[in-house]
Amino acid sequence: MPDDFVVTPWEVKGSVDYDRLVTQFGTERITPEILERIRKTTGELHPMLRRGVFYSHRDLNWILDRYEKGTPFALYTGRGPSSGIHIGHMLPWFFTKWLQEKFHAKLYFQITDDEKFLFKDFDNLEDATKVGYDNILDIIAMGFDPKLTSIFLDTEYIHHLYPIAVEVAKRVTYSTTLAVFGFENANNIGEIFYTSIQAAPAFLPTIEAGKEVPVLIPCGIDQDAHFRITRDVAPKLGYPKPALIHTKLLPSLLGPGGKMSASIPESSIFTTDTEAQARKKVMNAFTGGRATVEEQRRLGANPYICSIFAQYNYIFEPNDKNLAIVEETCKSGARLCGDCKAELWEKVRPWLKAHHAAREKAKDHVEEFVVRDR
Amino acid sequence: MPDDFVVTPWEVKGSVDYDRLVTQFGTERITPEILERIRKTTGELHPMLRRGVFYSHRDLNWILDRYEKGTPFALYTGRGPSSGIHIGHMLPWFFTKWLQEKFHAKLYFQITDDEKFLFKDFDNLEDATKVGYDNILDIIAMGFDPKLTSIFLDTEYIHHLYPIAVEVAKRVTYSTTLAVFGFENANNIGEIFYTSIQAAPAFLPTIEAGKEVPVLIPCGIDQDAHFRITRDVAPKLGYPKPALIHTKLLPSLLGPGGKMSASIPESSIFTTDTEAQARKKVMNAFTGGRATVEEQRRLGANPYICSIFAQYNYIFEPNDKNLAIVEETCKSGARLCGDCKAELWEKVRPWLKAHHAAREKAKDHVEEFVVRDR
Repeated sequence: MPDDFVVTPWEVKGSVDYDRLVTQFGTERITPEILERIRKTTGELHPMLRRGVFYSHRDLNWILDRYEKGTPFALYTGRGPSSGIHIGHMLPWFFTKWLQEKFHAKLYFQITDDEKFLFKDFDNLEDATKVGYDNILDIIAMGFDPKLTSIFLDTEYIHHLYPIAVEVAKRVTYSTTLAVFGFENANNIGEIFYTSIQAAPAFLPTIEAGKEVPVLIPCGIDQDAHFRITRDVAPKLGYPKPALIHTKLLPSLLGPGGKMSASIPESSIFTTDTEAQARKKVMNAFTGGRATVEEQRRLGANPYICSIFAQYNYIFEPNDKNLAIVEETCKSGARLCGDCKAELWEKVRPWLKAHHAAREKAKDHVEEFVVRDR
Repeated sequence: MPDDFVVTPWEVKGSVDYDRLVTQFGTERITPEILERIRKTTGELHPMLRRGVFYSHRDLNWILDRYEKGTPFALYTGRGPSSGIHIGHMLPWFFTKWLQEKFHAKLYFQITDDEKFLFKDFDNLEDATKVGYDNILDIIAMGFDPKLTSIFLDTEYIHHLYPIAVEVAKRVTYSTTLAVFGFENANNIGEIFYTSIQAAPAFLPTIEAGKEVPVLIPCGIDQDAHFRITRDVAPKLGYPKPALIHTKLLPSLLGPGGKMSASIPESSIFTTDTEAQARKKVMNAFTGGRATVEEQRRLGANPYICSIFAQYNYIFEPNDKNLAIVEETCKSGARLCGDCKAELWEKVRPWLKAHHAAREKAKDHVEEFVVRDR
């Protein structure tokens, strides 16, 4: 099979075949049966579940089994602070917030400043930590429950993480990281060790509680490699394997073939974009439209390759009926790309404005969320 | 050149050719000129310097240059807590204590519980930490100045060490650790990362002082590999390269071909040996004696392969004249191995008794020495 796309924690390239990833990574599809179990428990299904944005999992049935029998689970997710936050980063966080509300789950939110320093072009570790604190404002602005949420930066919480990481590291050979991540001899020894640090928070809830606490990790499918290692090691250390629920990656505003990228500002809307910047990105976005208005009226357009439709589908149009109308009128040629862009902007604009305000307010609440070694 | 001996931080095998190590590792011999500089500054020369027990160095002249111009240096040494302490472990500590006294130097003493967990057969990290605390009693019992000495366990001081270790790790490739340590793909990823943690304390004094503080590391020549990496990275991070002063390894009581080993109790005197146990080890030790008394009286014996003479030379006979008498009467056949053993035991016995008492007393002083993240 040709490598026409690549999905690793550090690189997403090409047009991702999400079905093939399920086979390649050995995960499971989220079935209608699982959706029904969730609906029964929560009373509703998040649009990202209904629409298969969160589409793959590991051991989700086990989480639900335990929950139904009265054992709550903890949530663990994270952020690699390489840049500012865009809506692609926030996609799993919207869903994580919903999970927190519906399951009243404690959330462990890891900020991997060490990782981004080791893998990226930061000159100093402190620069990554600084970006981490900037990202935390966006996380807090999402509206997580401060009583149920702990955010920590690896370098500031390492006293808690390192002893667990060392226990993990002892059970992972260099060969394994070669096979799982494709490392080479030129990789630095921090990169090689790092997966141990990302494994650690999966075991924190059990350590803190002094008894087995199931953990569910909502994350992009690109992060699965880390947690394959974490899950492999867990029973050897006497911890439950963390369960996973995987999201697809939000398509770029520039069209097929890649996720949104901080290095290409036009590829996504960033939380610190001005209204004018964000509006311009929406208006310039790649669509599935035809070459001319006449042609589009006659033949219809293609919503399935359209980045605007993807924003609706993944995030900005939670109402299924409305989404179906967009889909049908697009295909029939009744609506033009300009209509869609204008309507999306009418959804993005107030959201962005509210987020700007929430982000500003978050500056006064950092200490309610962030935990540190001391 | 055949590998007839091996010296790495984790393995010493065969009959070590210390001269060849100087070439192999690229260190420098301690010259009479350097000894004279030290004698001028301190007023005397430690027996381990006079006798070439500490025999090799890196940048010791730079340390003395700086010191003579008024810049004090810090000392950094350590202990891998895999087992109880024997006198082979203590050899560099006797000398470190002398350096601390003569140069009024602050001492950073690292206990690498993470390392020993990663490289040894500990089932749990806590077991290595526990051995670390047991070893600390011996370190305190050496008589270091509590006002000038900080002892820390890696897992308990990681908040201070990890950010430095990550900066180091970014500059060290897997290729480098392959070349320096001879790692293989089956090594675990903690082992591969670990040298970054051993590098970190070399930069702590400069970080704490907020200005360049020279660091001198007294250690076994087997530890040089780590500090070749540390020294290579130092200027890239803006720190001075730590200087080193290397000791030979105390010969085993069982004879040539290896250092003292915790896995072979008879190979050395342990600080927790009873008098009876220690006496038996001395009495059973390998010597350079002849097959019969008659033969030895006639031909003399060989002090240079004798483990008893080595204990005198390295540690227990600081008086050069007395040592010369032992050497000559051994070679002439005037003294027999039984005499030497009995006399050594008369030196070891009171030392062991005093150490037992000091070790017991140390239990009340741990908190004066140990620093932790919180």
